[in-house]
This record gives sequence, structure tokens and C-alpha cells, in this order.
Amino acid sequence: MRETLAALEAGDIGIEEAESRLAGYATTDAGRFDAARERRRGIPEAILAEGKTPAEVAALATTALDTTGRALVTRADEAAASAVAAAVGDVEADATVDRDDRAGTVVVHAADLEPPSLDAAVAVVAAGTADAAVAGEAAVVAREVGAAVDRVDDVGVANLDRILDQVDRVREADAVVVAAGREGALPTVVAGLVDAPVIAAPVSTGYGVGGEGVAALEGALQSCSVLTTVNVDAGFVAGAQAGLIARAVDAARAE
Amino acid sequence: MRETLAALEAGDIGIEEAESRLAGYATTDAGRFDAARERRRGIPEAILAEGKTPAEVAALATTALDTTGRALVTRADEAAASAVAAAVGDVEADATVDRDDRAGTVVVHAADLEPPSLDAAVAVVAAGTADAAVAGEAAVVAREVGAAVDRVDDVGVANLDRILDQVDRVREADAVVVAAGREGALPTVVAGLVDAPVIAAPVSTGYGVGGEGVAALEGALQSCSVLTTVNVDAGFVAGAQAGLIARAVDAARAE
Amino acid sequence: MRETLAALEAGDIGIEEAESRLAGYATTDAGRFDAARERRRGIPEAILAEGKTPAEVAALATTALDTTGRALVTRADEAAASAVAAAVGDVEADATVDRDDRAGTVVVHAADLEPPSLDAAVAVVAAGTADAAVAGEAAVVAREVGAAVDRVDDVGVANLDRILDQVDRVREADAVVVAAGREGALPTVVAGLVDAPVIAAPVSTGYGVGGEGVAALEGALQSCSVLTTVNVDAGFVAGAQAGLIARAVDAARAE
Amino acid sequence: MRETLAALEAGDIGIEEAESRLAGYATTDAGRFDAARERRRGIPEAILAEGKTPAEVAALATTALDTTGRALVTRADEAAASAVAAAVGDVEADATVDRDDRAGTVVVHAADLEPPSLDAAVAVVAAGTADAAVAGEAAVVAREVGAAVDRVDDVGVANLDRILDQVDRVREADAVVVAAGREGALPTVVAGLVDAPVIAAPVSTGYGVGGEGVAALEGALQSCSVLTTVNVDAGFVAGAQAGLIARAVDAARAE
Amino acid sequence: MRETLAALEAGDIGIEEAESRLAGYATTDAGRFDAARERRRGIPEAILAEGKTPAEVAALATTALDTTGRALVTRADEAAASAVAAAVGDVEADATVDRDDRAGTVVVHAADLEPPSLDAAVAVVAAGTADAAVAGEAAVVAREVGAAVDRVDDVGVANLDRILDQVDRVREADAVVVAAGREGALPTVVAGLVDAPVIAAPVSTGYGVGGEGVAALEGALQSCSVLTTVNVDAGFVAGAQAGLIARAVDAARAE
Amino acid sequence: MRETLAALEAGDIGIEEAESRLAGYATTDAGRFDAARERRRGIPEAILAEGKTPAEVAALATTALDTTGRALVTRADEAAASAVAAAVGDVEADATVDRDDRAGTVVVHAADLEPPSLDAAVAVVAAGTADAAVAGEAAVVAREVGAAVDRVDDVGVANLDRILDQVDRVREADAVVVAAGREGALPTVVAGLVDAPVIAAPVSTGYGVGGEGVAALEGALQSCSVLTTVNVDAGFVAGAQAGLIARAVDAARAE
Amino acid sequence: MRETLAALEAGDIGIEEAESRLAGYATTDAGRFDAARERRRGIPEAILAEGKTPAEVAALATTALDTTGRALVTRADEAAASAVAAAVGDVEADATVDRDDRAGTVVVHAADLEPPSLDAAVAVVAAGTADAAVAGEAAVVAREVGAAVDRVDDVGVANLDRILDQVDRVREADAVVVAAGREGALPTVVAGLVDAPVIAAPVSTGYGVGGEGVAALEGALQSCSVLTTVNVDAGFVAGAQAGLIARAVDAARAE
Amino acid sequence: MRETLAALEAGDIGIEEAESRLAGYATTDAGRFDAARERRRGIPEAILAEGKTPAEVAALATTALDTTGRALVTRADEAAASAVAAAVGDVEADATVDRDDRAGTVVVHAADLEPPSLDAAVAVVAAGTADAAVAGEAAVVAREVGAAVDRVDDVGVANLDRILDQVDRVREADAVVVAAGREGALPTVVAGLVDAPVIAAPVSTGYGVGGEGVAALEGALQSCSVLTTVNVDAGFVAGAQAGLIARAVDAARAE
Repeated sequence: MRETLAALEAGDIGIEEAESRLAGYATTDAGRFDAARERRRGIPEAILAEGKTPAEVAALATTALDTTGRALVTRADEAAASAVAAAVGDVEADATVDRDDRAGTVVVHAADLEPPSLDAAVAVVAAGTADAAVAGEAAVVAREVGAAVDRVDDVGVANLDRILDQVDRVREADAVVVAAGREGALPTVVAGLVDAPVIAAPVSTGYGVGGEGVAALEGALQSCSVLTTVNVDAGFVAGAQAGLIARAVDAARAE
Repeated sequence: MRETLAALEAGDIGIEEAESRLAGYATTDAGRFDAARERRRGIPEAILAEGKTPAEVAALATTALDTTGRALVTRADEAAASAVAAAVGDVEADATVDRDDRAGTVVVHAADLEPPSLDAAVAVVAAGTADAAVAGEAAVVAREVGAAVDRVDDVGVANLDRILDQVDRVREADAVVVAAGREGALPTVVAGLVDAPVIAAPVSTGYGVGGEGVAALEGALQSCSVLTTVNVDAGFVAGAQAGLIARAVDAARAE
Repeated sequence: MRETLAALEAGDIGIEEAESRLAGYATTDAGRFDAARERRRGIPEAILAEGKTPAEVAALATTALDTTGRALVTRADEAAASAVAAAVGDVEADATVDRDDRAGTVVVHAADLEPPSLDAAVAVVAAGTADAAVAGEAAVVAREVGAAVDRVDDVGVANLDRILDQVDRVREADAVVVAAGREGALPTVVAGLVDAPVIAAPVSTGYGVGGEGVAALEGALQSCSVLTTVNVDAGFVAGAQAGLIARAVDAARAE
Repeated sequence: MRETLAALEAGDIGIEEAESRLAGYATTDAGRFDAARERRRGIPEAILAEGKTPAEVAALATTALDTTGRALVTRADEAAASAVAAAVGDVEADATVDRDDRAGTVVVHAADLEPPSLDAAVAVVAAGTADAAVAGEAAVVAREVGAAVDRVDDVGVANLDRILDQVDRVREADAVVVAAGREGALPTVVAGLVDAPVIAAPVSTGYGVGGEGVAALEGALQSCSVLTTVNVDAGFVAGAQAGLIARAVDAARAE
Repeated sequence: MRETLAALEAGDIGIEEAESRLAGYATTDAGRFDAARERRRGIPEAILAEGKTPAEVAALATTALDTTGRALVTRADEAAASAVAAAVGDVEADATVDRDDRAGTVVVHAADLEPPSLDAAVAVVAAGTADAAVAGEAAVVAREVGAAVDRVDDVGVANLDRILDQVDRVREADAVVVAAGREGALPTVVAGLVDAPVIAAPVSTGYGVGGEGVAALEGALQSCSVLTTVNVDAGFVAGAQAGLIARAVDAARAE
Repeated sequence: MRETLAALEAGDIGIEEAESRLAGYATTDAGRFDAARERRRGIPEAILAEGKTPAEVAALATTALDTTGRALVTRADEAAASAVAAAVGDVEADATVDRDDRAGTVVVHAADLEPPSLDAAVAVVAAGTADAAVAGEAAVVAREVGAAVDRVDDVGVANLDRILDQVDRVREADAVVVAAGREGALPTVVAGLVDAPVIAAPVSTGYGVGGEGVAALEGALQSCSVLTTVNVDAGFVAGAQAGLIARAVDAARAE
Repeated sequence: MRETLAALEAGDIGIEEAESRLAGYATTDAGRFDAARERRRGIPEAILAEGKTPAEVAALATTALDTTGRALVTRADEAAASAVAAAVGDVEADATVDRDDRAGTVVVHAADLEPPSLDAAVAVVAAGTADAAVAGEAAVVAREVGAAVDRVDDVGVANLDRILDQVDRVREADAVVVAAGREGALPTVVAGLVDAPVIAAPVSTGYGVGGEGVAALEGALQSCSVLTTVNVDAGFVAGAQAGLIARAVDAARAE
Repeated sequence: MRETLAALEAGDIGIEEAESRLAGYATTDAGRFDAARERRRGIPEAILAEGKTPAEVAALATTALDTTGRALVTRADEAAASAVAAAVGDVEADATVDRDDRAGTVVVHAADLEPPSLDAAVAVVAAGTADAAVAGEAAVVAREVGAAVDRVDDVGVANLDRILDQVDRVREADAVVVAAGREGALPTVVAGLVDAPVIAAPVSTGYGVGGEGVAALEGALQSCSVLTTVNVDAGFVAGAQAGLIARAVDAARAE
């Protein structure tokens, strides 16, 4: 907030802009950025790069950095990610920029940001290589909420040994996200093996009838294990919900 | 055939009826019964009881018994099964009647029938209690085709130990039918564990989106293991296809 | 377990039955009851009354009571609920029987049962009268897992004052279930108002296109707030997942 | 009409063309333009740019301008909008050209056009940035019908304060259009807050199951508030219907 | 309100009940009745008889009559309608009871009720006999809102002469509801013939693909005329929206 | 056939190729061309340009011209149509080439072809400009079968005067094809006005729910007039079926 | 018409009723009967028994008999058919009543009716026993239009010999209706074997995905042979369209 | 394995890589390649080229060649196939590279590979030219499993003579794959003609309702013959399942 006021004082922004930022809602030519969202549930507002030009994404990212001390970009391709990195470097040289190209995410932290750190863990499990993008998006979001995140990859059910080998790691988490496409059997299997709440993240793989993640989503809805689900490819939502559970656990630990 | 000709000679049936039976196609008031089907691929023609009165089912069953030496009734409720048993008893006292009320099947064999017997085995695996009817229908059909059938029940993936405990039995079969409803993860898991061809038999359990077996069918279509599938609740088709594979294996063994 | 062994000693049950019970898996004529489920994640195995005769439900309930000290019946109509109450009374006079006819649930506790009690709260919010059954099922399950449950009813968004009046109560919960049918806007609104993780429980109200809960489920999947969802009418799953979150919070508080 | 006759007299057009125009139906190489539509219900015929070349759109726009004194182009991209502006400038230098690039509309008025002006107001409400195009299209159409239009943006239900802050403005309208994608909760919330008729305009945002505006449309159809709806992205229809209501109110005021 | 207070004074109801009624929200054993809805937009709260016992419907109707001076029951079968008539007669002998068995509606007015009367007209048009129930429901609701209602029946497009013969009557209305099932062409045809806003009310006739009103609803959504729509069989919503337009027109006339 | 034999004699083709052609089935590198189809029902085999390169289309067209004396190409874009024209010109300079770019068809006739000519008429009716491609395809096919074809365009039901003005022309046909997209009301209206059999040809216009021709197809399936339908955009099938009816009528006239 | 006037003179009916009848539109308590339909395209108006009481069906049938000299009832169960037979006998003793219980049709002819008789034939082909009802409905309608009808039953493609044995009979028809459910392959096979126009009549057999006739309808829409289709179970429409083709052929023969 | 150890010894790969390869799971930058799959059921792991760059496909192919002695690439376009051929040539000059551009497959065998060879035959039947890609993929896979494969093309049911002419060839196979799009009637017809198990491979041809292979898949699920199916375009799965049957038959022959 100090920065916003300083910018106003310095004449860099006008009163309207200052008011808007303080209300948690900043406007750029590329659209609006909802800074208040972060305050509401501790979940950073994600900037969805899909359908925006690299320049628009970069503008929103610098606004986010300016108003909240960080920026989280999702579904960024190479061009968008590079534009963000360049723009941020121009504005605030000390900010850290963390790209995960497979997940399509870019995370920017101001040098003086103290990101949230929760005493709680989230496991993010993925069935196969094609599920890595959604799992990655979930992991980045959960981490930004403050959770310790453990990635467990390539444990699809066509070869049961893999998940059985890794299940002890998964059991240590306070919340579990399981990303799987095709027939989506993995969330059901994992929820039968662990005690923590499991969130399915269906992935839009597969073609023909039941393709594009539909079978995986319906499998989560019909699961004979207890679990909840998010929509196809909604890695952000799965990671955020796992983060909310981690926050609740962290708060309880701190009591 | 001898019986048909005898009946003709005895005047019990007319020339038209005899001709029709010999052509493998017998007519009763309840509809037509296709005796030739049995000759075509070795799969007995099933009399679908659903949507017919007990009397109609019984009439078709006695016609089948008369023309082919046996009868196979599917989806029979208590009334239909009892009507068949009674009607058969009246006509041919020595015939054996084998009811499986959970599967909804009735099998009738003439006393002098030598049912086919194949040197090949079919495993019929079911995820839960609700899948028993479809598994049972598949098992009865495979048995009538002549296969040795091994039933493996209650091995749903929500508790992986169960299928892992039984997998050695399943591995002994030449073909495997896996009946599962809800999210239908079991066929994918089984196909990852055995060498023989696996046929998924999705079951119409589950409610809401993906219910009525749709998620289970789509899961089979999207499976990351190699398997083929039949339609929801089509236990007859799954058992018959497994029987055809068993026949092929039996023929090869006999060479 | 003592009781099972006593029954074996007394000759009331055979070795096979005893073995099965001790393995957490009891068989009656009405089907199998999975006692091990309770041990797995602390979620009691529910006996789904739908599609079973009152006698079958009662038999499963007494088996559950016998093997685990309690029974949870869902989707019970008047006949099924009464059959359970009568059967339990015959077997164990001191057991308490708790019926919720609107939710269609029956809960039976053995006199000496010490049900789990968690230091964590679950709010169960319902949009309208028609959503009460699903909300009720969720509430009963969460309570059986041990959570303190607060019901908030009749707060549909067509009259925003209602939810705004009650939001402070909802904010006190560690996990929130929101049951809503029709257009299903309430989970999105609630998730915008509270910090805790929100689970949508779509309800099969509404007719025409998007009816039977489909619009409500899709609304949850598309929500612009962070939440996860269960299938239409899956009150059991929503309550169980909320219970798992409450267990995680309780464990953290106890550390 | 005068112009058409003059053009005929001048030999610029033939008798057939004149007849066609007077019948309200003008033909260009790019297709037919239905001038009579404007006369029928006071709704200007929109030229849908989607699927046409810029040249075709421009030709239809000049024909519309020529026969009715104005042109309304929808779903125009940059190229189409520029082509229209250029073509109109060539033909009739005094015409005003009004582009709204976000909404994809171009409005052209002849210098001597007296556009309709109704004593009635339409509010056009949008949930988020992504809904602006559909809201904009609705607003432009309602304005062309003659209504006073008030735009209320960024009032999505994930942050209820926003719509509650603006509801007094919305209450002043005689008809309300509410554009929303994703879960489409806003039309239901608004219809619970205002007295005027509300028209939902679902927007094709969202991915996965219920995406592309399907959940938003089904939410409108299932709404527990009273409202009617148009198809996904049909901003033109929503604005036109709101305009028809405004015309009815205007006529009543004028009595 | 006087009656509520009198009942409180007389001890017939307790303070809680009085408070609830005054807050516009009355509770009976059969559920809650939302009296405030009437105050919100002038649309009477309808009691949906479907899925309730006759006794429950009658109890809600007498509560409505008691708290608002009238009751509107929809989708009532013979038993429900008779139960309402009897119950009302017992409680308030002078109330008028108006049944429309084809539409499934019952309207009860207290003797001293002065129902709203608007200076505005609604036409309710129906394609065929099978569309009469939905049209009837719409007509009753519009009438209760206060509009003058004109019914135009049996004007399906398979015989165009019928609608052409009646179109002058339809043109006199301020708002038009068009009920049609099967292919649902009538709303499109009517909207091409009149100036007033048209609301389609698709009807759940038709079988096979596109049956149950789906083709009619999709036809309304795809209409090449300007119109809005409600869900399949939602006569109540169509009539209420037409009533809201009539109210807006009436208010303008009264200015 | 003479030509094929001549080519064989001349060594231009081998025996295999000759045999294949005489069997009505010619092979080029671009795929197979089924010359026998023409003999089977008098319907020329259409070469679907969609999904093939211009060179492949041209090769198939010259093969068709060579083996049957004509070629009918559908869904040809500019490149494909030009390639056909050029290739044909190179091979057989006297052949006539008839392109209809809106319909996407190219018709090639050998100079000495005597195309079929039936004493029977087909009317092809189109609702709007967007329906012209499908109508055009139907018209070309019906004409190639030999029918006299009358095109009636721009008679959509939003302005009933248009179809009423043209109905006498339509009444003169022996079979009627009606192409319409969006809500697809026109086939129903036309079938109510004429005596001849009507075939609906739904067109893939429209967006959102029911878009891509789905509402139009379902409208045809649900029509309250008597008519049959083809799939969305299947102008070829509609024209061919109308041609078959015309052939039956022609044959009857010739008796 | 004479009878109507006589009835008016005799005071049996009023002027309104007479006017209505002469306009081809008779009203009974059970609904309206559209006598004009018969005049429009020569297709008798069918009275759909489904969803009406036997008494209502009987009343409509006697009205039809009275106004047009015949009655055609479809989808009649035993009770409805008997009620029609009885009612007709009471009113007009000499009328002939022709029931087809499998097809669910009742045809009543006045003694002095001269039913239409066309010099043209329709073949109605059915795949299996379950398709007989739809085929029967089509046959009855085609016969009432006046065509000579030839039924060809039990020629499903699972045993190709059957249809190949019967194809010469089918080839004699001027129009062909093919009723088939399940995978609906028969219409495609038949259309490959005959010259006349083929109309598919998909039948609502089959369960699971693609069941209820959906696969059969889609198979007709996707057929690689030329044919048109009606909706699932729409035997009436298929028979009527075949009748219209027969009428066109008959008229041509008569020229 | 020798090669892997040699590479380790030579320092070409590290211990981790060696371990991974020996565990049957090799990692490249392009993703993971599952060498163990081949060991599990004898089905070679296919490298799906779709969605990968040519370089990624080539890298995975050389890894596969290196670890298993062969590589099977599916859905390769020209660029991907060429990249594989070049990369393989660079690494192992003696390897054979077998491209089938229509099927989109590339098969690479190391010079010293002894591919499996089974004493069992698979017939792969295709309806039309458009089905050749899916049939080709199935054939390549079955051949790699070791079966003798017989291709039977262009035998669609629109001309029954073709399949009847070829049926004797098909009857010689131990398992049959039938690829067909559009209405998908061919698998049903073939399964009625042969004794061996038939696997349908629906193809994504066809447009409009039931297009993209949906009608063909549903036709297989609803078939009145006995057969199982794979998903639309899943030629790999169909060929692999046929290969598993061939392996079972081969093993039986070898006993």
C-alpha cells in the first residue's frame, strides 16, 4: 500500500488509480486485475495467459507485482512467459522470476516479499507424462498459498507397482491432488490408499467417446472411494483447494 | 432333428412348423426363436425375459429345448424363472433346470444333451456386489459355450489388496471378463496385471453425471491398458466373446 | 472383535464367518458389508437402502452393528427405516436408533460405542427445502466421522439477505458443504464469502434442459470461486470429505 | 426511399434493384440485406461479420446505409471494421462511424438520420472482463433501438459487494440484460434484487464439462429467480428483446 | 398483517411464527412458504404440487392464503386440487377457489383481497392441444400478476391459416407467450408477425431424439426472429416474465 | 465400357485396371472411385473434395469422367474446382465443366454424354443465404439424376410473406427438398403447404446450444408435419433421394 | 358433410359445432380432432392413444368416423382398442373395425367409405420381432393412404441370407420403409440392394450407450447408402411419407 | 540389456539412466518411454507422434530402439516419419525402417532383432478408403505382436457382393478386426458371417449428428451380432487385442 501512496505522491499514478488499487482492484489497458482476491482467501489471483497477447499478460503481471508483491501467470506459452520475464526485469530488477514451461506457469516475487509459509504439506500425484501440465499448475498454486508440495509422477494404474512403491510418500501429505486423464482410475486408487482428503484433477487427454477428459471427470464423480473433484484441466482450482486445506491444518497446528 | 421329424410324423406339428425348425427358426405365439444362431458361432441363442410375460418366456424356452436340446434364459425375474421351470418339467421331466437368481439366468439341458466342453478357461471378475448380475450372466454364457469358468468376486480397486490377492487365479484363464460399474477402474487395473485378452463389462450402477454405467463404459474406451469392451450391462455379449476366444484356444489345443 | 470371537466360541457363527468379520468383511444373505472401510479412512461404511428390500437393509444394519458397533443407513424410506429400528431392537435392546426421515438416514449406535469426536466443525448449508435431503445426508455422515456439524438452511441466492445474515455462522467452520439444486449458484456465492474449503453438493432438482442437478453440477465445475464438487445427490461423499478435512484439522490441533 | 427513387431515375440502379429495395430487401454480391426487418419490429438488421470477407461486410454495410440510413455490424474484427469505415467514408463522407472493438460492433449513421430515441432505459450488466463483448453487443443493439443504456461492469458474484454497491443503478432500468459466463450465477442474483424483467445473456467462457457457456445457459434455464434467456453469446438477441420492452414502455409513457 | 397480529394476540400462533410471517416467510410441517416473494417482484409465490402429498399442498395453500390473502398452486392433480379446495373452505368459507384442471392450477383469493389489476395485456398462444397445460399455467400466473390475458389456442404452423387468422388479436398484447412442443416453430413464426416482446415456452412433447421439449427449446435458442425463452414446461416463468413486462407498461401508462 | 476396352487394347491400361473398371471400381493413387454406384441406383458417385488435395480430386474426377462419362465433385473450394477444370481440359477438351462456387460443386460432362432426363420435377427451397450451399448441392445432385430442378431461395419463416408468395411454384414439384439451419422451422411450414413428399436438409448454421444444425435436425425429426430428413449439411443425400422419387414418378409416367 | 348438416338440422349439434366440423376441425371433450389434415395431404389424422384415457380415445375415434368416414388410432393398448371398438359399434353398427395389437393400431371404416386405392406399392421391411410394432404402424398408415403394402419380416443383418432371400419382393415396391433398432444396419443394406427410395424407421430397442434407438437413428443419418429417415419409433411418419411417394407415383401412372 | 550396461561402462549414460532402462523405463528430454510395457503383455509400446515435435518423436524412437531393439511410431505425419528414419539411420545404420504413410506408422527393427512370430492369423477388414488409416494401424500392431495379418479392404455394406466375395479369406483368421466409420454396419455383418472373435474399430468419419465415429461406435455397442469394440480410431488397441488372442492361440498350438 505504501508503494501505491508513494506512486500517487510522486504523480506516477492518479487518484483514481490509487483508489482502485487500494480497493484491491487495479485496471490496466489489458483488463482488470483483482488484487482483493488474494486478501479474500489467501489464494493469489492467477493471470490466465490463454487468449491474451504477451503484452497484455506482461502488463497484468507487473500490475499484480506492483499491487500485491507477486504475480502468478497460468497457461503461458513461451512468448507470454518471456514477455513477463522481460517486463518484470525492466520494472523491478530484484524480483525473482520462476518459470515452469511444462506447467505453463510463471511466478514472480518482489525482492522484499515474504511469501506465506504453512506448516502443512500437499502431495501432487500424476498418472503420466501427459498429466504433468495440470499437476504442475496445481503444484505451483499450492506452493504460492504456502504449502510444502511433494510431486509424485508417472504412477499410472496400468502398472500398479509404481503407485504402490510411492504410496508412503503420499501418505505424509495433509491434502492430495491426483491428476489423471484417459480413464482416470488413479484418483480412486489413491483415495483407497491414503487417509488425507483427495482432490481429483481430471486431464483432457484421450480421444473419441469419453475423450477430452470427460471419462476422467465422470470417473471422479462416480468413484467408489471418497474424493471430490474439479473440472477438466482445472489444476489451478485443485491446487488452490488443497492450499485451503493446508491453511486450515496450519492454523490448527499453530493454535 | 429326429424329434422334429418324429413330431411331424406324429402329426404334433405341421409341415410348415417342421420346415421352420429345420431351417433353424422356430415360431411360437410369443415370437420367433432362432435355433440357427447356435449353429452359426456356437453361441446359444438367449431368450431375453425382459419385456415378455412369464408364459411367453416359458413357451420360447420349451421351443428352444425341443429344437436344440437346451434353453438359455437371461434377465429372468422370479416369475419368469419359475414359469420356465414348470413348463419344462411338464414337457420333459428329465431335463435339468439350473437357475441363478442373482444373474437372472435359467439354463435348461435335455437329459440326453452333451453340452460342449472346451479345453480352455474364462475368468469372470467382478468389482462389487452390484456387479454380480452382469458377471453372472457372462459366466453362464461362457459356460454354455463350453469354457471352464472361474468367478472372482468383490475385488474392487478401492481396496487394492483384494485384486492383488486373487490375481494368480485370474492369470490362469485364456480370456478374462471384468464386470465393474461406477468409475469402472477395475478392467484397466486387471489388464495391467494379466497376459490374456481382457473384456470389460461395464455395469449400470452409479447415479448423476456419468451414472447408469456411462462412466464405466467410457473408462473402458479410454483405458490406458489394452482391452476391448461391450455395452453397459451386456454380460451376455462379454461372456459370448470370451467363449469364442476359448473356442479358438480349444481348437488350437486340439490340433 | 471380542463379540465375534464369543460368537464363534458359542457356535453362533462358523470359522469362515469369523474370519471374514475379522478381515473386516462380513457376509449376509443380503450381500457383503465392508467393515474394513471404517478402519481405512475413518469413514463409516454406509448401507445404501435404495434398491434393497427392508429385510435386506435390516440384515446388513445388524451385521454392521455387530461388527463395528454402529450402522449408517442412507436413502431409507419409511419401510426400510422401520425395519432397521425393529431388527436392531430385537438384537440389541440398548442400541440407540436415530432416524432423519427427510435425509433418509438411520444411525444406530451400540450402547457401549464411543463414537469419534473431533475438535473441528463442518457447516452444512442448503439453498432451499428441496435441498434438505442431500444436506441432511452430508450432515449425518460428517457427524459420524466425528465433526461438530452446523446446519444453515433456506439461504438460496434469490434472496441474498438470507445468506448474508448467516455468513458469520458459516465462517466458523473448518470445512463447508453447500447443497443446492436448480442453477446451483449458492456454492459459488458462499465460497466468495468464507475462508474455509467449500465442497459443492449439487442436488437433482430442476426439470427440462440442465435439470436433475446437471446445471448445478456444471455450475460447480465452472465456478469462478475456488471449490471442489461431488456428483449430483452425493451427500454421503460431500459429508465424508468434509469429515476427512475435519479429521486433518483435529489431528493438527491435537499435536 | 427518396434516395432509391432518385438512384433509379439517375440510372444508378435498375428497376429490379429499386423494387427490391422498396420491398425492403436489397441484394449485393455479398448476399442479401433485409431492410424490411427494421420496419417490422424496429430492430435494425445486423450484418454478422463472422464468416464474411471484409469486402463483403463493407458492401453489405453501404447497402444498409443506403437503404435504411444506418448500418449495424456485429462480430467484426479489426479488418472488417476498418473496411466498413473506409467504404462508408468513400460513399457518404458525412456519415458517422462508431466502432466498439471489444464488442466487435460498428455502427454507421447517415448524417441526416434521426435515430429512434425512446423514453425508456436498459441496464446491461456484466460479470467480468470476459463478458464485456457480449454485453457490449447487447448494449449497442439496445441503443440502436433507441433505449438509454447504462453499462454496469465487473460485478461477478465471487465478490458480492460489487453487485450490491451497484444495484441501485440497475433498479432504475425498465429492462435488464445480464451477461455472464462460467457458472452464470449473476443473472439469478440480479433478478432477485430488481423489479424489472431480466434477460440472461450466457457467455461462452469456461472449459471442460459445462464449458463454452453451457453451464451459464443451463443456469439461466434452471434459475430460481424469474428471468428469460437467449442462447450463448447471443448479445444481439438480448439487446434487441430489451429494446422491444423499452419500446413498449416508451409507447405507454407516450399515451 | 392484521390477521397475523390478531392470531398472536389470540394465542393461535406463537411469537416465532408471527415473526416468521411478518418477515414474509411462513413455516408449516409441509415446508416453508415464501410470502416475501410476492413483495419482491409482485409475482405470487407458486406452490408446486408435484412431489408433495395433497395434505402438504393444502397446508401450504392455507398458509399462503393466511399470510398473503391468496394462494397459487401449480401442477396439481385432481387429488391435490380437491384437497386445497376442501382445506380452504374449512378455514375461510368466503374465499374463492378457481381450478383449471388442464393447466393443473388452483387459485385461491380471500374474500377481501383486491388482486392487482394492470392496464396492460398479455397474449398466451398455444400450438396444439398438448401445449394447453403449459399455456394455461402461464396464463394463470400472468393474470395473478394483474395482466389482462388473451388465450389463442390451436394455431400450430402445420396449418398456417390458423395463426394468420388470429394474428390481429395477438398484436394487441403488450407481451406475448408462445407455448409449443415438438419442433417448436410457432414462437419463431409469431415473433416475425408481432411488435411486442415474445417469450417462448417450450413444451415437453415429442419422443425420440430432440423429444421431451429439447428440440422446441433449442429452436427457441436458435430462432431467426428476436425472442427469449424459458426452460421446457416452465409456464410459470414465462407467465411471470410476461407479467413483469405488463407491470412495466402499466407503470408507464400510469405516469 | 467401349473406352475401357479400347484403352486396354491400346495398352494404355493393364488388364487389372480394365477388370477393375468393368467391375465399376476404378483405382487411382488418390483412392478408389466407385463407378458401379451410378449403375446401382442411378445416382452419380460424388467425389468429396473435403480432406483431399486438389491434385487428388482432379485425378479422381478424370477417372470418373473416363469410366462413366461424367464427374460430380462436392465441397470443392476454389483450388479444387480449378484443378478439376484444368485436369479435365487437358484430358478431354470437349468436356463441359460446370462450377457452382457457392454450392462447392463441379460437374463435368463428356461431350458425347447423354445425361439422364426425367419427366419429373424437384423443388429445392432454402430459408436464407447461409442455406444456399446445402441447397445448391442438393440441386446439382437432383439435376444429375435427371430431374427438372426449381430453386426457391430466401423464404425463411421470420417473414412468412416470402414463402406464401412462392408456394405455388413449390406445389408444382414431384418432390421437395427444404434446406434450413438455425431453428429449422421452414421444412415443417412447407410440408404443411404442399402435397408432394418433403425432405428436410438441416444446415449447420447457428452457435451455442442447438447450434451447428442440431436444432434444425431435431426440428425435422420432431416435425408436426409429415416429412423425412437427412443429416446436417447432407445436401447430396437430400438431392439424391429427391432424384430417386423423381425417377419413380418418371417411370410411372412412362408406363 | 351431409351428415353434419343433417345433425345441425336435427338439433343434435349447434351451429358452432357444425361450423367447426365443416372447417375440418371437430371438438370433443377429449380434445380437438383435425379433420382437415386428411384433406391437406391425403394422410389420415391419427389419434395417438398414448397419454389419453380409453374413453377419450373412443370419443375422438367416433368424432373422426363421423366427420371423415374413418378413424385411425395409433399406440393403442388393449383397453383403448376395446373402448374404440365398443364405442364405434354403439354409434355405427356397420362400421368395420380392424385391430393390429402388435402394432397398436385400430382402423375404423364407415360402411359406405370408399377408401383411397393407389396403383402403387410400399414395402415395409423389419429386422426382428422387436421392430414389428413400428413396422406395423407404418404399414397401416401407408395402407390407409391407399398403397398396396407388402410386409417383409425378420430379415436382420446378423444372418444375411434372410434379406438376400427376400430382396426380389422388396424390389417390386415404389417406396420402401425399413424398421430396425439396435445398431440399425438394415436400412443401409437394403438401400444398397434396391432402386426405390428407402425410408429408415429407427426403433427404440437396445440399452446402454446408443440405446433407445439412438444408434439406429444415427446410423440412418450416417448411412453410406442414400436414404432419408424419421425419428425413433415414428412409424406413422415413415408410412405416411411412403404413402405420399406412392400417391405421386399413382398420379403419374394415371396421367 | 547388454547395450545398456556397455553404455554405462563406456560412460555414455549414468547410473540413474542405466537403472531406469533396466527397470524398463527410459527417460529422454521428450518424455518417458515405457520399455517394460513390451515385457508385460508382449505388446510393443507405441510412440504416439500426435502432439509431439518430429525431434521429440525421433528421440523417443531411438531410445525405444536402444532399449528394446525396435520402435513403433503411430499417427506420424510426413515430417515425423522422416525424422525417425533419419535419426535411426544416424544411430544404427543396419536397422530396418518400415513406413506406412496411409496408416501413419513407422516400424523400426534392429538388425539383430528376432521379432516374435506366432502361428496364428489376424484378419483386418476395412469398409472403405477412409477406414484404411485405422485398419493400417491395427494391422501394424498385430504384426508386431507376431501375428500373420491379412488385409481385406473396400468391402463396405452398401455393396454386399464385396464382403460376400471375400468372406472365405476372413474365415481363415483366428481373430478379426473390422474398421468402419459412418454408420458402422460392417462389423455386425462380418460377425454374422465368421466364427472367430470379431473386434470393431470404429473410424471417425461422418459429419453432423452421430459423426466423428460416434454412430459407428454406438452401432458396435448395440450390435445384434456378438462382438467387442474399442474406442473411435483406436486402431492400436484393436490390433493389440487381436494380437493377444493370436498369442493365446499360438500358445495353445504350441502345447
